[in-house]
Amino acid sequence: MRAKASHLSGHPTLAVGSWVGERRALTAVARGAAPADRYIQDGTLLNVYTGECYPANVAIKGERIAYVGGRADMVGARTEVIPARGRILCPGYIEPHSHPWNLVTPAVLARHVLPLGTTTIFADNLPVYELAGPRGFEAATRALTRLPLRFYWMVRVHAQSRSTGEARRFPAGTLARLIDNPRVAAVGEITRWPELLEGDRRLLDRLALAAVRRKRIEGHTAGASAEKLQGLAAAGIASCHEPITAQEVLDRARAGIAVMLRQSSLRPDLKALFGALKEAPGLAARLMLTTDGSSPAFVAEHGFVDHLVRLAMAEGVPSVEAYRMVTLNPATYYGLDHEIGGIAPGRFADIVFLRDLSEPTPERVIARGRLVAEGGRLVAKIPEPPWRRIFSGPAARFAPGLRLAPEDFGLLSGRRKPVLRLVSAVITRLEERPAAEGDLLAALVDRRGRWICRGIVAGFARDLHGLATTLSTDFQILVLGRDPRAMAQAVNRLPAVKGGLVVVERGRVIYELALPLGGIMAAASLPDLAARERELLDLLKARGYAYHDPLFTCLFLTADFLPEVRLTARGVWDVKHRRVLSPSRPLARGGRRG
Amino acid sequence: MRAKASHLSGHPTLAVGSWVGERRALTAVARGAAPADRYIQDGTLLNVYTGECYPANVAIKGERIAYVGGRADMVGARTEVIPARGRILCPGYIEPHSHPWNLVTPAVLARHVLPLGTTTIFADNLPVYELAGPRGFEAATRALTRLPLRFYWMVRVHAQSRSTGEARRFPAGTLARLIDNPRVAAVGEITRWPELLEGDRRLLDRLALAAVRRKRIEGHTAGASAEKLQGLAAAGIASCHEPITAQEVLDRARAGIAVMLRQSSLRPDLKALFGALKEAPGLAARLMLTTDGSSPAFVAEHGFVDHLVRLAMAEGVPSVEAYRMVTLNPATYYGLDHEIGGIAPGRFADIVFLRDLSEPTPERVIARGRLVAEGGRLVAKIPEPPWRRIFSGPAARFAPGLRLAPEDFGLLSGRRKPVLRLVSAVITRLEERPAAEGDLLAALVDRRGRWICRGIVAGFARDLHGLATTLSTDFQILVLGRDPRAMAQAVNRLPAVKGGLVVVERGRVIYELALPLGGIMAAASLPDLAARERELLDLLKARGYAYHDPLFTCLFLTADFLPEVRLTARGVWDVKHRRVLSPSRPLARGGRRG
Repeated sequence: MRAKASHLSGHPTLAVGSWVGERRALTAVARGAAPADRYIQDGTLLNVYTGECYPANVAIKGERIAYVGGRADMVGARTEVIPARGRILCPGYIEPHSHPWNLVTPAVLARHVLPLGTTTIFADNLPVYELAGPRGFEAATRALTRLPLRFYWMVRVHAQSRSTGEARRFPAGTLARLIDNPRVAAVGEITRWPELLEGDRRLLDRLALAAVRRKRIEGHTAGASAEKLQGLAAAGIASCHEPITAQEVLDRARAGIAVMLRQSSLRPDLKALFGALKEAPGLAARLMLTTDGSSPAFVAEHGFVDHLVRLAMAEGVPSVEAYRMVTLNPATYYGLDHEIGGIAPGRFADIVFLRDLSEPTPERVIARGRLVAEGGRLVAKIPEPPWRRIFSGPAARFAPGLRLAPEDFGLLSGRRKPVLRLVSAVITRLEERPAAEGDLLAALVDRRGRWICRGIVAGFARDLHGLATTLSTDFQILVLGRDPRAMAQAVNRLPAVKGGLVVVERGRVIYELALPLGGIMAAASLPDLAARERELLDLLKARGYAYHDPLFTCLFLTADFLPEVRLTARGVWDVKHRRVLSPSRPLARGGRRG
Repeated sequence: MRAKASHLSGHPTLAVGSWVGERRALTAVARGAAPADRYIQDGTLLNVYTGECYPANVAIKGERIAYVGGRADMVGARTEVIPARGRILCPGYIEPHSHPWNLVTPAVLARHVLPLGTTTIFADNLPVYELAGPRGFEAATRALTRLPLRFYWMVRVHAQSRSTGEARRFPAGTLARLIDNPRVAAVGEITRWPELLEGDRRLLDRLALAAVRRKRIEGHTAGASAEKLQGLAAAGIASCHEPITAQEVLDRARAGIAVMLRQSSLRPDLKALFGALKEAPGLAARLMLTTDGSSPAFVAEHGFVDHLVRLAMAEGVPSVEAYRMVTLNPATYYGLDHEIGGIAPGRFADIVFLRDLSEPTPERVIARGRLVAEGGRLVAKIPEPPWRRIFSGPAARFAPGLRLAPEDFGLLSGRRKPVLRLVSAVITRLEERPAAEGDLLAALVDRRGRWICRGIVAGFARDLHGLATTLSTDFQILVLGRDPRAMAQAVNRLPAVKGGLVVVERGRVIYELALPLGGIMAAASLPDLAARERELLDLLKARGYAYHDPLFTCLFLTADFLPEVRLTARGVWDVKHRRVLSPSRPLARGGRRG
C-alpha cells in the first residue's frame, strides 16, 4: 500500500521511501538472500533489449522482476514455482494510445485484454475529466491503480469541441497538478493543430506545462501536410497516431515526430502503413502500434495489441521487431523503459507466456507479479472504480424534468439550411441548400437543458425515425431522425437510463443501450457490449446506414476538429472557416430549471 | 536571456513563458510568417529518425531549428543563407559520459571538440562539486550555459573515495535541488556497486532522489558478473560504460542496462566491444559510444566523438547506425530526443556539415543556431567561467604554510608493510611484505594539512625521485618517490602553483604542470596541455614507468572502488575486504593552522 499511496500523492518523501524499500527487497532476492514470491522456471526469454531468445528463469518479488538467469537460490519454501518449459516469455504488451471508455469501462477493458497479453495502457483522460471533473478523474485513476493492468494517462488540455466555459474547465493550475502525477505520461492528443501552427498562446501555455515537466506532448495531426508538420514539430508535438497512408507515416517520422501505426475499428489501416518500412527500414526502431479508440465489437472479434502483432508479422515485419513495437519501443518513447517494456530486473513483472513467437495470443499472463490469466481466461479480480460517486457532479447529470417536444426538432427556417453530408463514417461535407428527401433532422441538446443546436444530416440512415444518444464528443445529447415525435421520445427516454443510446420507431423503443456510467459506459462485459454494438449496426444498416461504425459516426458528428461541418454547442460549425453557420438557441422547456 | 535564465532557475512560470515565446517564434518561421535567422541551403539531410539521406534546407530561429524542407519563404532580407550543396547535414555529436575536467576546463574542451562536431556533453560534476561546493558547481554550470556546446550534468551522490565528512558533503536536500535543475540528466556514476547489491539504504536513498524525478541512474559496474548485474539492474542502474569485452557488453544489455561502448585514453577497447553486435545485432538501436575521461593527449591525437564514429565504421558498423549511436541513441536514452540528437523542427540547431558519411570530421559546425567552426577552426567565442571565484571556498585551498619534511615520508615501521603493486595502469594487487628494491614511498596528504596516509607503491617508476600532485580522486595530494627529500620538495612546491603536478630530482624541479584552477585544471589550450602530458609520460617512462597513462595511474591510486588496495584519507585501504591496512595519522606541521 505504501508504494501505491506514493504513486498517487506524488509526495517526494513517501515516494523515495517506497522506492528504496522496493529496491532493497529486489536486491535481496537477486543476491539469493531472500526468497522470491514467484519463480518462472525453464522459460525461453525474448530479450527485447538485445533481440535474442535464450533459456532463463525469472524471479519475482512483489510487483517487480528481481532476477533473470540460471540460479535458483532465491526459491524458498513459500516461493510459487511456475513451470515454463517450451514457452517463450515475452514482456507484456503496451498500448500507447487508447480511449478505454468506448462503451466499456477501463476495468471492463482490462478484464478482456489482460488474457490477450496487454498489461499497460496509455489512456486518454477526456471523458471522465469532462464528466466527473478533475477530482473525479483523479479518484478514478486512484481506484484504477489497484488493477494489475497498469494505466498511464494522457491529460487533455482542451475540450474535444469548442464551447463557452472551456477555459474554466481546463485551468492551468489544475492541469499542472494532474501532469505532476507520476502516472501521467503526456498531454494531448492535441486535435487543434491549426491553432498550434498559428502559435496560439493559450494553447502553447498549456503544452508548456508538460514540456517543463519532461512529459510528452501527444499530437493528432490528421490531414496535416509534410509542410505543416514542420510547424507542428516546432511547436513541440512529439508523436502522432493519425497517419492513414505510408506516406503520412514517413512525413511524420522525417519531421522527428514518433509514429504510432494504427489499426482501429474506425481506421483499420495498419497493413498499408507498414509500407513505410519498405522505404525506410531504419524507422522500425522507433515505431509503435495502436488500437486507438477501437469499439468493443472490433476488440471482441480481432483482439487488442495481440492483433497488431499478428498483423505486423503477416506484413513481413520480423517477429522480434514486431514484439519490440508493442513493448520496448513505447516504453522508451514515454521514458519508462526502466519500468515496463522488457523482462529485466527492476521492471514490473508483466510477462506473457507464448507457445511460439508466431502466435502472440498468450497461454498465460502475469501482470504486476501475479498470474492474471490462464488459457485465455481471466483469473484475477479486477475491481470497478466507484463510478456512481465519481459521476456525482453536475456535468454528468441531466436537467431534472428534461423533456423535449416534437416542435423542438422542427425544420429550421430559411431556404439555405446547413446540411452535414456524411461522405465516410466520420467525414462530412457542407451543403447549404433546402432540405431534401433522405435528409435527417439533427440536433445537439445540452444535458442540462439550456440550449439546442439544430441542423440537417444527410447520408446517415434515411429510414431512421428517431435516435438519441449521449455519445457525443462533448457528452451532450445528439438526436437524429426523420420523425420529430420519435426524436423527442428518444431524448426523453435517456434520463431514465442515465444516458446511452435509444432508437424509437412508431412510438416504440426498438433499441436501447443503457450507459449508466456518465452516459458513456456500462459495467457489462466486453463481449456483451460488443453484441449490443453489432445489434445497433444491423438495425441502422437495415434503415440505410452505409458505413461500418455508427458509434463513431454519432460521436464525431459533434467533433469540431474534423472536416467539414459539425453540430456544436455554439451552433452548426464550419470547421475550416471557424464560423457558426446557424447558432444554437436557448431551450425554453426543461432546461433552465436544471 | 529569458530562456537561459529559466533553464537555470528551474522556475516553472519563467520556464513556461520562455518555452511559449520560443515556440511562437519557431512556428512563425515554419509557416513562412517570419524570417529565419539562418537558412542552410541545398544540403543533404541525414535523417536519423528514418535512417534516410535526402536533399533539404534547414531554417534556424534563435537556437533552434524551425523548419526542414523545400520551401524558402522564411528567407528574409536579414536571413543569413549558408550554402550546403554537396554536403551532408548530420546532427551534432553527443558524448553521453564525459569527465570534462581532465587538465582542461570544460570550456577548453569545448573549444577543441566543437570543430570536431561534438555539440553536447553529458558530464560528471564531481571535481567541481567537491572542490567548489554545490554553490560553486551551480555557478560553474550557470556560466557554462553561455557556451554553444551544451553541457548536461550527471550529479554524484557520493564521493569517489571514502572519507569522514562525506555525508555532510552530499546532503539529500542539496542533491535534490541539483537534480531538479533541468540541465541535470542523471545521478551517478555509481562506483559503489557492491553496496547497491547489499541494498545499502543510505545509497539507495540518494538514488531515489533521481528515480522519483524521472532522471537516469548512471552505473559504473566495472567487473560485475552477469549474476551481480541482475541485482544492479534491480537496484535501478540504467546504464554502464565500463564493459571491456564483448561479453561484458552483452551481459549488461541483456540485463536491461543500456551500454555505452568506450574508447578512452585509459581503456581503448572499442574495437573488441563491437563484437557484441555480431552476437546480437538487434542491440544496435540502443548502443551509445563514449570517450569517458580521455586525456588531452589522446583527444589531441585521435579526436573526440568523431573518432568513435570513425572506429565504428572501420569495424563494419553501417554508417547510419554509427551516427545514430552518437546522436539519436544517447538523446533518446536521456529522454531528450525532443531537444537534441536529430535535425528536425524544435530541436537545437546543432548541425555538422560532412563531405561524406565516411568522414565524420566536419567541414563546418553549427551549434545552438550559430556557426561555431569552419574547416576545423573555432570561430565562436567560448568564455571561461569565473573559476577564481568558483574555487574560492575552503576545499580547494591549501593550508597556509603547508610544509612537509623528508621525515614525513620515512618508511613505515613493522615488517609486513602494505604494498600497492601496480599490475596495469590502474589495477593494483596487495602485497604485504618488507620494502624491496624498486618500491616507491607513497603518501596521500590532506591539502588542509591535517593528516597523511603512507604506504608503498611497486611497479610505478623505480627511478622516480619525488612526484607530488593534486590529481587524486578526492583532490588531496598524492606523493610518490624513492627520495623523501625530493618528495617533500615536490609537495612544498604545489601551493605556489595552486596545485598540479611537480617532479623533483636531486634538489631540482624537473617537471612542473601548474593546474591553478582547483589544482585540477588549467585554462591553456588542449594541444598545449596535451604536449605537457606527453612530456610527463616521456619523463616517467625514462624512469621506469611501464604503462600508457600516468595521470590516471596517479588519479586512481586513491580510488577505493578499484581492485585491490588504495591510499585513502582513512589509511591504506583493502578494497575487497573494506578495511584499513595501515591508518592515516595526523600531520603535526603545517596543517592545523589552515
